[in-house]
Amino acid sequence: MILTVTLNAALDITYRVPRLRPHSTNRITEVSERPGGKGLNVARVLAALGHRTVATGFAGGGTGDALRALLAETDVTDALVPVGGASRRTVAVVDETTGDTTQLNEPGPTVSPAEWDTFLGTYRELLGGARAVALCGSLPPGVPVDVYARLTRAARTAGVPVLLDTSGEPLRRGLAARPDLAKPNADELAALTGSTEPLRAARDARRRGAHAVAASLGPDGILAVTADGAWQAAPPWRIAGNPTGAGDSAVAGLLSGLVEELPWPDRLTRAVALSAATVRAPAAGEFDVATYEELLSRVVVTDHPAAA
Amino acid sequence: MILTVTLNAALDITYRVPRLRPHSTNRITEVSERPGGKGLNVARVLAALGHRTVATGFAGGGTGDALRALLAETDVTDALVPVGGASRRTVAVVDETTGDTTQLNEPGPTVSPAEWDTFLGTYRELLGGARAVALCGSLPPGVPVDVYARLTRAARTAGVPVLLDTSGEPLRRGLAARPDLAKPNADELAALTGSTEPLRAARDARRRGAHAVAASLGPDGILAVTADGAWQAAPPWRIAGNPTGAGDSAVAGLLSGLVEELPWPDRLTRAVALSAATVRAPAAGEFDVATYEELLSRVVVTDHPAAA
Repeated sequence: MILTVTLNAALDITYRVPRLRPHSTNRITEVSERPGGKGLNVARVLAALGHRTVATGFAGGGTGDALRALLAETDVTDALVPVGGASRRTVAVVDETTGDTTQLNEPGPTVSPAEWDTFLGTYRELLGGARAVALCGSLPPGVPVDVYARLTRAARTAGVPVLLDTSGEPLRRGLAARPDLAKPNADELAALTGSTEPLRAARDARRRGAHAVAASLGPDGILAVTADGAWQAAPPWRIAGNPTGAGDSAVAGLLSGLVEELPWPDRLTRAVALSAATVRAPAAGEFDVATYEELLSRVVVTDHPAAA
Repeated sequence: MILTVTLNAALDITYRVPRLRPHSTNRITEVSERPGGKGLNVARVLAALGHRTVATGFAGGGTGDALRALLAETDVTDALVPVGGASRRTVAVVDETTGDTTQLNEPGPTVSPAEWDTFLGTYRELLGGARAVALCGSLPPGVPVDVYARLTRAARTAGVPVLLDTSGEPLRRGLAARPDLAKPNADELAALTGSTEPLRAARDARRRGAHAVAASLGPDGILAVTADGAWQAAPPWRIAGNPTGAGDSAVAGLLSGLVEELPWPDRLTRAVALSAATVRAPAAGEFDVATYEELLSRVVVTDHPAAA
């Protein structure tokens, strides 16, 4: 199975309003809820691709119960660790006139040292059956900032390949533990390296410890810098829609490609096609199957002239 | 005891953000939750004034569990009727830079005919022990639009005085059943009667069936038109703060004054002082006790020159 870790799992709530009027009262016309947090989105896409997928991390309170009930409706196996605080909500307010989304993200529950210890035990146990692990997203309060470094080392000790998808200090610390693959987006990569030139920044990120770096560049696709070479894969045309969750689908594409031992260009093709198909879907963790299948034969992969 | 009815009870969530950026991602710095819906706010203020208070209406789902758990921390007795759908959330996003609030209100659960019947039985039973009843707020989907007319007639049959605080068609229908007191705000009164002149509109609302009308006019206080005369009560100075829940506190002031058989000017004084003290408090259903006590001797009540 593939393991995904979501330390700050969320109940993702989407509100549709005819037109968002700030500083006023808005009646919501449609409410939808989904299990959220990057790792859970990745898990749902992996499961939809046919991979046995187990999700761990923390969930608690009424919002934790709600997100677990929604997760139970998917093919993802729930191995979330109970926490005393309530899981965070994220609220996406979609303005139906402009199509714009206003996002409101709660910080998440404070995790106690005892809860953290329980999680580490669960994680180590789950690694025993894992073919790969994805460490995804932001940290809830109370979790040590070097958490992804610790989880990466534990996975490497167990011989399980690690994909790291986070930002800021947790990314910086995590890289030093030498994950197999880091998947920052352009902003995260620039914040890490100080460079807004993707190839230069990706190479810098590799030097910081990642065996390979796959940077998601929005409509420009994905740039991978690996020990075997560098490639850029891009969709054949501009995809209109909602980019929320596109990066998580890219992670699912990369990780499934790693487990299936696909060549790098094929992993990138899958990741870009899944990303684009997610832009065409209503919510993170979902993708438009027709778009995905159509793009699989149309994504353009170019060998990057500069060697890694 | 005093009975309050909240057919569309809510889990009121307040988010504080340093500055709300629409169409962007906002990290919430502080989350708070309270039991909400007008009737529950009224109930909390009544209980704080020392009245035994019972709250009924509907609650369901995870949000219903959450709001009932919060209600259990107050002195209000919970007689909410379970419903299959989930109680609505209301989200208030407070911009800490401007002080403005952006409100997002879910519609609420659809109530089935069987649930509605169960509620009617509970309501009639509770009326047996009630000294007054407040019928407050909007209706969830599935509840008949003439609900407040029905509930008013049932209360009058049981000899229990009724205060009605709603808007639109439910208000129009409810008035025809002759409640003892209606408490519209200026906008609701104008929408009902077509007149933006409060005295004229309040007299019109009386002709539509209410024995008395107390219109809340924001910073201008409250205008009451009754069988015994007409009065306007106003705070002695402009009160700065958050007006959310001020009208609900006015209802609690008016209803407690009715039960205690206070003269009209004293009821209005209490209602205005409570309203103003709520503007100074952080949330609906709460009030600043010092402001309340100070204003009790300072609210200005004037006999209205025009007879009712």
